Amino acid sequence: MHFASDNGGPCPPQILQALAEANSGYAPAYGADAVTQAATDHLRRLFEAPQAAVYFVPTGTAANALALATLVQPFQTVYCTPMAHIREDECNAPEFYTGGAPLTLVPGSDRMTPEALRQSMGAPGRRAVHHAQHGALSLTNVAEMGNVYTVDEIAALCAVAREADMPVHLDGARFANACVRLGCTPAEMTWRAGVDVAVFGGTKNGCLGVEAVILFDSERAWEFELRRKRAGHLFSKYRYLSAQMMGYLQDDLWRDLAGQANARCDALAQGLERLGVEIVNPTFANMLFIRLPRRVHTAVMARGAVYHLWEGAEGPADEVVTGRLVCDWSVSEEAVAGFLQAVESEL
Amino acid sequence: MHFASDNGGPCPPQILQALAEANSGYAPAYGADAVTQAATDHLRRLFEAPQAAVYFVPTGTAANALALATLVQPFQTVYCTPMAHIREDECNAPEFYTGGAPLTLVPGSDRMTPEALRQSMGAPGRRAVHHAQHGALSLTNVAEMGNVYTVDEIAALCAVAREADMPVHLDGARFANACVRLGCTPAEMTWRAGVDVAVFGGTKNGCLGVEAVILFDSERAWEFELRRKRAGHLFSKYRYLSAQMMGYLQDDLWRDLAGQANARCDALAQGLERLGVEIVNPTFANMLFIRLPRRVHTAVMARGAVYHLWEGAEGPADEVVTGRLVCDWSVSEEAVAGFLQAVESEL
Amino acid sequence: MHFASDNGGPCPPQILQALAEANSGYAPAYGADAVTQAATDHLRRLFEAPQAAVYFVPTGTAANALALATLVQPFQTVYCTPMAHIREDECNAPEFYTGGAPLTLVPGSDRMTPEALRQSMGAPGRRAVHHAQHGALSLTNVAEMGNVYTVDEIAALCAVAREADMPVHLDGARFANACVRLGCTPAEMTWRAGVDVAVFGGTKNGCLGVEAVILFDSERAWEFELRRKRAGHLFSKYRYLSAQMMGYLQDDLWRDLAGQANARCDALAQGLERLGVEIVNPTFANMLFIRLPRRVHTAVMARGAVYHLWEGAEGPADEVVTGRLVCDWSVSEEAVAGFLQAVESEL
Amino acid sequence: MHFASDNGGPCPPQILQALAEANSGYAPAYGADAVTQAATDHLRRLFEAPQAAVYFVPTGTAANALALATLVQPFQTVYCTPMAHIREDECNAPEFYTGGAPLTLVPGSDRMTPEALRQSMGAPGRRAVHHAQHGALSLTNVAEMGNVYTVDEIAALCAVAREADMPVHLDGARFANACVRLGCTPAEMTWRAGVDVAVFGGTKNGCLGVEAVILFDSERAWEFELRRKRAGHLFSKYRYLSAQMMGYLQDDLWRDLAGQANARCDALAQGLERLGVEIVNPTFANMLFIRLPRRVHTAVMARGAVYHLWEGAEGPADEVVTGRLVCDWSVSEEAVAGFLQAVESEL
Repeated sequence: MHFASDNGGPCPPQILQALAEANSGYAPAYGADAVTQAATDHLRRLFEAPQAAVYFVPTGTAANALALATLVQPFQTVYCTPMAHIREDECNAPEFYTGGAPLTLVPGSDRMTPEALRQSMGAPGRRAVHHAQHGALSLTNVAEMGNVYTVDEIAALCAVAREADMPVHLDGARFANACVRLGCTPAEMTWRAGVDVAVFGGTKNGCLGVEAVILFDSERAWEFELRRKRAGHLFSKYRYLSAQMMGYLQDDLWRDLAGQANARCDALAQGLERLGVEIVNPTFANMLFIRLPRRVHTAVMARGAVYHLWEGAEGPADEVVTGRLVCDWSVSEEAVAGFLQAVESEL
Repeated sequence: MHFASDNGGPCPPQILQALAEANSGYAPAYGADAVTQAATDHLRRLFEAPQAAVYFVPTGTAANALALATLVQPFQTVYCTPMAHIREDECNAPEFYTGGAPLTLVPGSDRMTPEALRQSMGAPGRRAVHHAQHGALSLTNVAEMGNVYTVDEIAALCAVAREADMPVHLDGARFANACVRLGCTPAEMTWRAGVDVAVFGGTKNGCLGVEAVILFDSERAWEFELRRKRAGHLFSKYRYLSAQMMGYLQDDLWRDLAGQANARCDALAQGLERLGVEIVNPTFANMLFIRLPRRVHTAVMARGAVYHLWEGAEGPADEVVTGRLVCDWSVSEEAVAGFLQAVESEL
Repeated sequence: MHFASDNGGPCPPQILQALAEANSGYAPAYGADAVTQAATDHLRRLFEAPQAAVYFVPTGTAANALALATLVQPFQTVYCTPMAHIREDECNAPEFYTGGAPLTLVPGSDRMTPEALRQSMGAPGRRAVHHAQHGALSLTNVAEMGNVYTVDEIAALCAVAREADMPVHLDGARFANACVRLGCTPAEMTWRAGVDVAVFGGTKNGCLGVEAVILFDSERAWEFELRRKRAGHLFSKYRYLSAQMMGYLQDDLWRDLAGQANARCDALAQGLERLGVEIVNPTFANMLFIRLPRRVHTAVMARGAVYHLWEGAEGPADEVVTGRLVCDWSVSEEAVAGFLQAVESEL
Repeated sequence: MHFASDNGGPCPPQILQALAEANSGYAPAYGADAVTQAATDHLRRLFEAPQAAVYFVPTGTAANALALATLVQPFQTVYCTPMAHIREDECNAPEFYTGGAPLTLVPGSDRMTPEALRQSMGAPGRRAVHHAQHGALSLTNVAEMGNVYTVDEIAALCAVAREADMPVHLDGARFANACVRLGCTPAEMTWRAGVDVAVFGGTKNGCLGVEAVILFDSERAWEFELRRKRAGHLFSKYRYLSAQMMGYLQDDLWRDLAGQANARCDALAQGLERLGVEIVNPTFANMLFIRLPRRVHTAVMARGAVYHLWEGAEGPADEVVTGRLVCDWSVSEEAVAGFLQAVESEL
């Protein structure tokens, strides 16, 4: 009953298999190999973006920070939500990579509205020299509280950014989960809506560690490559990043894995609703936030469930606190059933 | 006949096997798993350094840059050779990670002498405020032209650094090849000789992509962890880095692989000497630099040998130019024999 | 009737006189001259801090950014208010100088409470590696809306910072105005209350361009000096910074200038209160925020008053908007009387 | 007999007078004042560059570092000589401001030849991703050993830079001394020869502390302004920088001061030649390098001469060492005569 995160589960056999297949004989280094070409081409087709520049890096933090550094100057600012992963969970990586561009937090939780964005930005033009200039908009889908922006919502936010000539970055650590939930194509969720650079995450959805950064406008591709190398994120044995991605892409494995994770989460939500448990957020992908007295959480954990409490494990037993449940592809039906049973017993 | 680099060959089955074994069920993220603990403990024993802080990162550039950033302040300088990988092949990663500390190039080729280092440094104390201050010494073993510092040479250089209270970083992308060649222990080649932070490379010697950074003094371990996270080099699914390292360490695989690579290089060298080919550097590990007319190189390449020419492939056919041959663990006896035959035919 | 800022008025003759006096013959460069020694000693006596390290830089932004860079690591964060000058008016200088440490905005306006600070900080200890670590607290006195922290309030905030071992920086661009208003000594407003590094501003209170940075603990003084040089803020002809500071310090000129500015502001406030004008903030030093219909502001400006409107000059004539009035030392009694008359006529 | 540097002498009365004149009444901040406009216009006329962007900063290090940061990306490199001020005397300021772009040292002393530059650069096009890319060429005139590049030499070096599309920065801390020596116009020494950004130094030639940065192509002017603000180098009371520059420019004071300094240096050189003293460098502006036994230097210093020894004051008395003599505008004929007499007595 592992619901702590989607980075704790194993890797599906198809991906290890792809790794093994790529491991034959000598291959040119630094991405000049055939597997890399194949994975790149596959992603260009998938995103309907034949001109896009496609790069693989091992972590989401690297993907986001490199993307932002390519889009933003150090005297500018990046707009994001107060809960954004780039703000809360990357230990200043965006500031490091951009050379010190601060984040401006658009009020809200894990998502923002066009109105809130516009208000945070103020006038779209050049600001006085004393102020950080408009740099980029950074969105996350699936967002940190499990919210999923619709395609229209993304488009509306991108339109506001465009008023100030700001490019848009999409943190897609859970891109697959959002895409499957929305039933849209990758192109619809990204460049068709106005996104300039998207991160297509593999790690949280089953890969060992690989994220694709896709620059729909390849004008700054060479700069991205140099920044990647300078950050130590250019793999010499690049084929092993590409092979993971190939395994992930082939036969739409990425969709299947995300679909399975989302389905388990749905099952969890439905079961919990039946039990009358308060669920924080009606829209969700593979993350669920539930409110229960701390003692119920604790008892359920004692029965083997692993997950995190927002307000911490320490505190009054009767306090109603939020538990975060994340389903990765490997969560079984038994785990879901077991969890529901545990909650039912303790309520 | 692939001698272009030691990053083009495949991964030995033991390492893929270790990956597969680590891929069972759920594991805590970010290095809190059992495989990580096992690999860390193994390295501490191997280096006879029970208190050392041990971290895994995916590339040598990341390993070097993070190590230097932990040792050096932005108003200091790092002493290295003009051919150092950190100078020539990391696209400014050291400057990026340290916040702008420049490299001071100690005259020489791929190695330096204590005298040259002392002369570059000048007086060991505080320098005037206008100048970059003494920061760290960075050594590389095996060095870029195939030279191997002996343990005594390392100790002599570390002693000069110590006069100025400078810590010492060892770039060990080819640590195993040097260690096997010297017939010394890892401890002798590092902390016993005065090295403060060593990179124990896995990638060039058979791993998919993993390097261990070993801080013999763990005082700045927490800072290293934060800098690693901030750089996007903390893997969430850390077990897959650790598993590679475990496979690499178990049954002294790392020594066997390096021994095999070195042996092939020896065989190449002996064969070439017999043929009267000029070899640039008498001491070597798994790299060889040979001098032949460009037309001979070209003809040998036409027979299937893959390697690089120092002065470039374009140029007068009769010009004697330097070819760099690198053996990784996977180079076969047949490849060596084939290469020698090709040279013999073309001489 | 110039109330736009305290950086538009002229320099009092005593300071130009001190410059002229310092301008005789040859003097050692970079601060090794006698005037620098005298100004440094004077400040040490004034702050009752004989061991303090004292440095002069030409701008407040340089003073703040260098102070923060000396206190904070790039993987930490600085706590300040949403209106802090370091956030709003320094174009990312703190992030530049610290190497990318972000600011965490403690909810409030231009001042914070200990409770709000504690809540923003969370637990005082080491945070998970994913998060920016506790770095420093940055306070401003006089704050941006004219508020003045009392000595007790400063002490209470410093105490919260101390719980997390965070040093405290005081932005004292208007140090003199606050100090005079509070009737306290410089020591009481700084190190006795728990401040580690204070900026004693000269520029806004009459100097051409000089701020003193005072490190009460001189342990990191040498680092400060190197950072200052590296930033291009070490004047070769340092005596001309020091001479300004000497002129500013001699015969307590700094107090007289601030007292005069504060008195003019008091007179403005009293006159406006008599006229029934809404004043935003009951506590003030030399800044006043008044609420009037935009058309009244506009009409008063047409009569020669120069100041800024918070919500901009464009907008509905009847909208009640906030005007910011700042008095520097050079504002005359006639200017105050003229302003009051202008408002009275237009009400 | 002060010959230690040209930053130790006093400021000529015309400049203090200009400061005093600018010190009347209120003036808009941050460069929107009339004095700034006048000084800017004057420089545009002087440089025959009506479209140039002109900025004033207080130090040469700031001027150089801001100029380079505007020209260079962090993954590029700047070519300069091993003795360049930006390398030896700015405590890593270029690396700080550019975000970590290293300097590549073109072999030579304080000057380079087109051939040496071309050899350091290698091929002019894009380099492999592992290497720092071509960024900018930085020249210094007067160079650090007193050498003066001719206009043709500058043009030849700029032409090499242009082959790789690299812009050219001119460190003109002693611009006036070079310009007067060459008998050329400022335009000839800069943009007509191919320089993109020039620093027109005031500080070493009599100002309190002001340097003009002139961007002949104003395309990146706004970026420069933001970088300047971000670095704390935008003066709020900007008029006091501009006033210094106005005083320096009016009636060609800058030429007169440099001419006087150069003339004193000529007199020194001629006198020393008559005495048979070895002079290192036949070409000079206001700097002279002389070779004498250390005991002669020491004895001359004991008679009141102040200057620096290249190899340090400590060492064998009979060792022939190099003394650096710098004349600023304020060096008197008596000081020159006194120095010659002292040398003569001690030889």
